[in-house]
Amino acid sequence: MATDTAPLLLTPGPLTTADSTRQAMTVDFGSRDEAFIQINREVREGLVALCADPAEYSCVLMQGSGTFAVEATFGTLLPRDGKALVCINGAYGRRITQMIEIMGRSVVTLVNDETEPTDVATLDRMLGEDSSITHVAAVYCETTTGMLNPIQAIADVTAKHGRELIIDAMSAFGALPLKAAKTPFQAVVASSNKCLEGVPGFGYCIARTKDLQAAAGNAHSLSLDLSAQLAGFDKNAQWRFTPPTQVIAAFREALRLHAEEGGVEGRGGRYRTNCKTLVDGLRALGFETLLPDEQQAPIIVTVRQPADPNFDFKRFYDALREQGFAIYPGKLTQAPTFRVGCIGQVFPADLERFVATVKEVLTAHEIASAAP
Amino acid sequence: MATDTAPLLLTPGPLTTADSTRQAMTVDFGSRDEAFIQINREVREGLVALCADPAEYSCVLMQGSGTFAVEATFGTLLPRDGKALVCINGAYGRRITQMIEIMGRSVVTLVNDETEPTDVATLDRMLGEDSSITHVAAVYCETTTGMLNPIQAIADVTAKHGRELIIDAMSAFGALPLKAAKTPFQAVVASSNKCLEGVPGFGYCIARTKDLQAAAGNAHSLSLDLSAQLAGFDKNAQWRFTPPTQVIAAFREALRLHAEEGGVEGRGGRYRTNCKTLVDGLRALGFETLLPDEQQAPIIVTVRQPADPNFDFKRFYDALREQGFAIYPGKLTQAPTFRVGCIGQVFPADLERFVATVKEVLTAHEIASAAP
Repeated sequence: MATDTAPLLLTPGPLTTADSTRQAMTVDFGSRDEAFIQINREVREGLVALCADPAEYSCVLMQGSGTFAVEATFGTLLPRDGKALVCINGAYGRRITQMIEIMGRSVVTLVNDETEPTDVATLDRMLGEDSSITHVAAVYCETTTGMLNPIQAIADVTAKHGRELIIDAMSAFGALPLKAAKTPFQAVVASSNKCLEGVPGFGYCIARTKDLQAAAGNAHSLSLDLSAQLAGFDKNAQWRFTPPTQVIAAFREALRLHAEEGGVEGRGGRYRTNCKTLVDGLRALGFETLLPDEQQAPIIVTVRQPADPNFDFKRFYDALREQGFAIYPGKLTQAPTFRVGCIGQVFPADLERFVATVKEVLTAHEIASAAP
Repeated sequence: MATDTAPLLLTPGPLTTADSTRQAMTVDFGSRDEAFIQINREVREGLVALCADPAEYSCVLMQGSGTFAVEATFGTLLPRDGKALVCINGAYGRRITQMIEIMGRSVVTLVNDETEPTDVATLDRMLGEDSSITHVAAVYCETTTGMLNPIQAIADVTAKHGRELIIDAMSAFGALPLKAAKTPFQAVVASSNKCLEGVPGFGYCIARTKDLQAAAGNAHSLSLDLSAQLAGFDKNAQWRFTPPTQVIAAFREALRLHAEEGGVEGRGGRYRTNCKTLVDGLRALGFETLLPDEQQAPIIVTVRQPADPNFDFKRFYDALREQGFAIYPGKLTQAPTFRVGCIGQVFPADLERFVATVKEVLTAHEIASAAP
């Protein structure tokens, strides 16, 4: 329910979560107590079960935000003498490049415009021309725009050239299909507060167990070392360093709700209906979305700001916030936009109410046309 | 209240927290929404106010555990051509050394036995002999044993030699006295789930603002960069990367309760009474504490295991757990011990009940003497 401090969050996360997920946080767990250790086991096994064979892959939880888990993954799995090719069409691809540069490891980039999916033919050519590239990094859904990248084609080309693929599936995992058996990857990374609808506080990487184990000593950081973190979990099912106990307890409940909704298929289905309700509704008001439908992931929609001089984003945000909706600023440099998320405990009826509220705000602000 | 999943936590953290602190987590905040931004401001300002002049020092919050904040502090403030001298008498001093080694920066150590406080005369001599040492790292209370290190003398000697001091005050901040005006430091680091009695999920560093700013580009990690994190807070009072929103909301409530209890003095006073109740009670049963009273910080007490062959730690732990108390294993290599924390929402009457329960368990397990 939207309140003054808790509007409905139409953002890419932190999200509006289920009451039972938040209620799971009202307990103090001892981090080395069996009651909590059991939660760790369930969470780690549940995450692997969503995408890979537990005989081959392990899940490593990592304190912090999704970015911490992404950095830990590259710091651990990209060898010091390795070389990454990062597919970039938004802020999150750029961020991966930046973190690898800070680590002092080799990186090249394949840059597409923020309104274009990753160009797989160019990726194929670049891998063919540079045998020193050991890893490809790709972002499944670019939260910058809501772009759905061609992850299957990227995985196929990467496998064809015998390189390893690391997928940043932050805004996709749990809602968009991803199975290692079909879409080969070395590692996939996501976080607690995205499509699995937990609260923020940790990220996770599901990676090939033998590769994590072989990477002992490779990380650039004590804290952000997935190999050492896995060894810790393997030793006594405990975290090396203090875990966010309540956040993890909430995540177990979130995983239960995800299964109850029908897993990836059920969750993704609701998000697709949310997204269609939102996009159809906004278009009917005259708004334009940044991306064509075939490139739009059902996660977050980038909307062009109206050209009408009466449109002011801050005023628009505040008016919607007053009515119980928190939207998200745009992140594009090229064009003025805003973003509306369709993930979390958000349902088609909520988005219908949202569109109706937007219509009222346009009228109240004397915005004659929503066209950009 | 102790329940099956929530015993009274007699540990160094995560702790038993106040009901109102946990209740503050039952809201979903938008991480870029003004309601949450205001919480960030209050938390950062409240932390600086506890120990330093806000005109000179800033607080940087860091996602993850306390170790993440410690690593971020050294990664940011220890120059790449700097050299740290780490005072070691337990696991946390060793951990600081290890993280600096992984960063590939210079480090020397002053090692004292785990049962001895840091030897300040040796520190004085080492600083006199090696002018290339730029930083001293000290642990205020070593959680390994509960040792209270002579932080004032360490700070005085470090200042005399014109070097910078970084204090790991993890198990001390908020309960033991520390003011930059009296105990000069460049930075002090602690975490949300210790003496300020929040829930786990972030750490924080309070450091000289100009030094944080001057350290731009020095960090070994994108995520663990306090300079960039501060620049982010300064820009728009927001976190660079997704924050653990609920954990931070809980911490604001925890800070309010800390002030209500009388701040550092009130909180420290209760812990001292807790510690005395615990130590007196256990000694009356025949137990021996590892440390003499003058070296014992009122945070966590290391107790020697009884020599009686009927004593089995796992069985002892389980029996206490059954009665609603979670204690903590020992971390010493030299002698078999266990640890009992006296921090969190734990009061003298709780420790009296605990001691009475320990007595019952000794009888039930036919342990004739608790002497080591």
